[in-house]
Amino acid sequence: MALPITPDYDSWPIDETLVKVIHEARYLSVTWSDGRVSRFHSVWLRENAADDTTVNPATRERILDLSQIPAWPEISEASIDEDGALSVLFTPEDRRLRFHPGFLRANDYDNQDALPPELPPLTLWHGEQLEQPPTIDAARLAEADHGSAQEAEILYPTLHELLGKGLVRLRNLPTEEGAIEKVAERIGSIRTTNFGHLFNVRAIQNPDSNAYTSIALPPHVDLPTREYQPGLQCLYCLENTVEGGMAVMMDGFAIAAALKEEHPEAYETLTTVHWRYANTSRNTDHVWYSPMIVLGQAGELLEVRIADFLRGPMMAPFEQTETAYEALMTLQRMLREPRFAMRFTYAPGDMVIFDNRRLLHARDAFEGDSGSRWLQGCYLERDEVRSRYRMLKRAERAERVEEATQTA
Amino acid sequence: MALPITPDYDSWPIDETLVKVIHEARYLSVTWSDGRVSRFHSVWLRENAADDTTVNPATRERILDLSQIPAWPEISEASIDEDGALSVLFTPEDRRLRFHPGFLRANDYDNQDALPPELPPLTLWHGEQLEQPPTIDAARLAEADHGSAQEAEILYPTLHELLGKGLVRLRNLPTEEGAIEKVAERIGSIRTTNFGHLFNVRAIQNPDSNAYTSIALPPHVDLPTREYQPGLQCLYCLENTVEGGMAVMMDGFAIAAALKEEHPEAYETLTTVHWRYANTSRNTDHVWYSPMIVLGQAGELLEVRIADFLRGPMMAPFEQTETAYEALMTLQRMLREPRFAMRFTYAPGDMVIFDNRRLLHARDAFEGDSGSRWLQGCYLERDEVRSRYRMLKRAERAERVEEATQTA
Repeated sequence: MALPITPDYDSWPIDETLVKVIHEARYLSVTWSDGRVSRFHSVWLRENAADDTTVNPATRERILDLSQIPAWPEISEASIDEDGALSVLFTPEDRRLRFHPGFLRANDYDNQDALPPELPPLTLWHGEQLEQPPTIDAARLAEADHGSAQEAEILYPTLHELLGKGLVRLRNLPTEEGAIEKVAERIGSIRTTNFGHLFNVRAIQNPDSNAYTSIALPPHVDLPTREYQPGLQCLYCLENTVEGGMAVMMDGFAIAAALKEEHPEAYETLTTVHWRYANTSRNTDHVWYSPMIVLGQAGELLEVRIADFLRGPMMAPFEQTETAYEALMTLQRMLREPRFAMRFTYAPGDMVIFDNRRLLHARDAFEGDSGSRWLQGCYLERDEVRSRYRMLKRAERAERVEEATQTA
Repeated sequence: MALPITPDYDSWPIDETLVKVIHEARYLSVTWSDGRVSRFHSVWLRENAADDTTVNPATRERILDLSQIPAWPEISEASIDEDGALSVLFTPEDRRLRFHPGFLRANDYDNQDALPPELPPLTLWHGEQLEQPPTIDAARLAEADHGSAQEAEILYPTLHELLGKGLVRLRNLPTEEGAIEKVAERIGSIRTTNFGHLFNVRAIQNPDSNAYTSIALPPHVDLPTREYQPGLQCLYCLENTVEGGMAVMMDGFAIAAALKEEHPEAYETLTTVHWRYANTSRNTDHVWYSPMIVLGQAGELLEVRIADFLRGPMMAPFEQTETAYEALMTLQRMLREPRFAMRFTYAPGDMVIFDNRRLLHARDAFEGDSGSRWLQGCYLERDEVRSRYRMLKRAERAERVEEATQTA
């Protein structure tokens, strides 16, 4: 015998061992070597088994339909076996299934507060505190193989900052057209939009967006006209010799928090009244209705949709309209306060990645004749960052398991 | 003089004319030729003006920041001018702005119940009622120019069915590898995922998904492991000579409605308790937490996330776990009832497009040796369908305006 497989491809180090198990029909209770006690329901264990009646061995995807077991799965025996695994006999199937202690410890839903956070916690910031984007030297990224330790050394702090603060700046990347694609795809798939797979931010003739002029852009998110506004935006600088055109970034979640504190009635309005977001274009007609600040069920911040130039005529009930505009103007005044804004200048070879559902970005006007300014951009989803970050953590775990095996 | 421009690129027929206007400082009231009365706030009118202090004439995107006007915009004069436009003098700016009556009528937020619906209403269905997907002959689509009337003749009913019933089948398309891309891009940008820009559904060696085997697939949505599960899925049949492998589709919203009616306690649980969705892969690690049935603020159905083989170990509080599993099994039993399922066989040249956040799809097992079965697939966002549908409506309006101009 050996430790059982888990219903995933992850590696789970055994930092604590199982020392005791007692059971009822519908749950069991294990005690760990550090004294922690964890309860697991029979039904939870049954669904998370890894044998081939539960999981397709070729894909490790679940094939079990719980409701097809003739009765509620119950425990008739439970023990810790000689390999240190939890061994459970289930009725009515009369099936013995074994569980990996590292897997159980990692999924200890009975002690959720004791689990390490899966992702870095959000850190809200004002420009007064965080004057420049967190910056990572990425000079060696281009030569790093995909999946290599060298790549992980750069990607891990990059994703960590991005998940926590909502933005990060990679420096010293090659100033080649299209190089953004190679960097972005180290994280995940690029999200193509009507602006293309990649887009070029520079002043052009016949622009189809204010972004493609030299005028100042007020603080905004991109594409709030979509049901799913892009989760991440990358801007990669290829040329920048103009006067002006400084980049401005603000933490929209910090602004929402300040609004809640200082103008609770405006916050209440902007989290409930729906605005109409609409692009103005000859070729597309995207429309979405949403509050400007979107909260989850527990009142937590999910996203901001702030972009004055991407709002269409508001369609709220007549009685709500003036209140909504009052709240909007309160927010607009806050956006002009200097405390929130971080200002920086793009250097060629810089790539800034930021959370487009949380941060606002803006741009000072620039003198179109004073030189050239060329950014390339693309969108990704936040899913890709989280998945990549988890894969880096998984690789760390796999290494620890490997080391433990060699030591043993 | 002539009718003023609007702050968009849309065309607004004048079906009714303005016959009277009276004003207060903060709103005005217009009477239309059919007797309807519509109120518009001064602040709403000011923000939706189309002059070049409000809108960048090169992009028609708003440049006005309302909070920079020295005081709340008020009306000092309002009249209907000789062109039939609404003419308003605003203080404190002392600025006269004119409004297109067709634009005002289309954005009559004071009479929202009288506005035509922007999109087809949802029509929930059971397989007992809708036995086959709504079907459109698309034999002539390949030769239709983009934006042509010939394309619109096929696309309009296609998008209409898709928005209302959540699925549509195009028939008689060319059976060429990659042809799916050309059809999908007539609607909008394809969403690339870790499964690629396009994916191939056929039984393969070393599958990374149960989809790529010949086993039966239970009813599911794709990629519920993402914060934004894809809004639309296209499946395009290139070959199908196997025994079995019938496609099964169900309206997840109709199932949710039935669950609410027949098992209200299970509905309550599945709309609140968060499940963990997780893919099992060697290369990606996507995780998302969500109720299985997601409701909006008003209790309306937003999406379903049903996919037993894409759920990871549940991490709900210990006290909720058994209740959650009871509700899950109630749902699983409903999914096996024959009343919900539509069953059909893909013919080469068929492309089925369906709402992946609403419909569940499944597949009967097939005999891998009995022939070949090859579907190509891709994802899009629902945004693209709505935008395309609106553009078709916009073209209709432009035609009506054109005709009225020629008649006049």
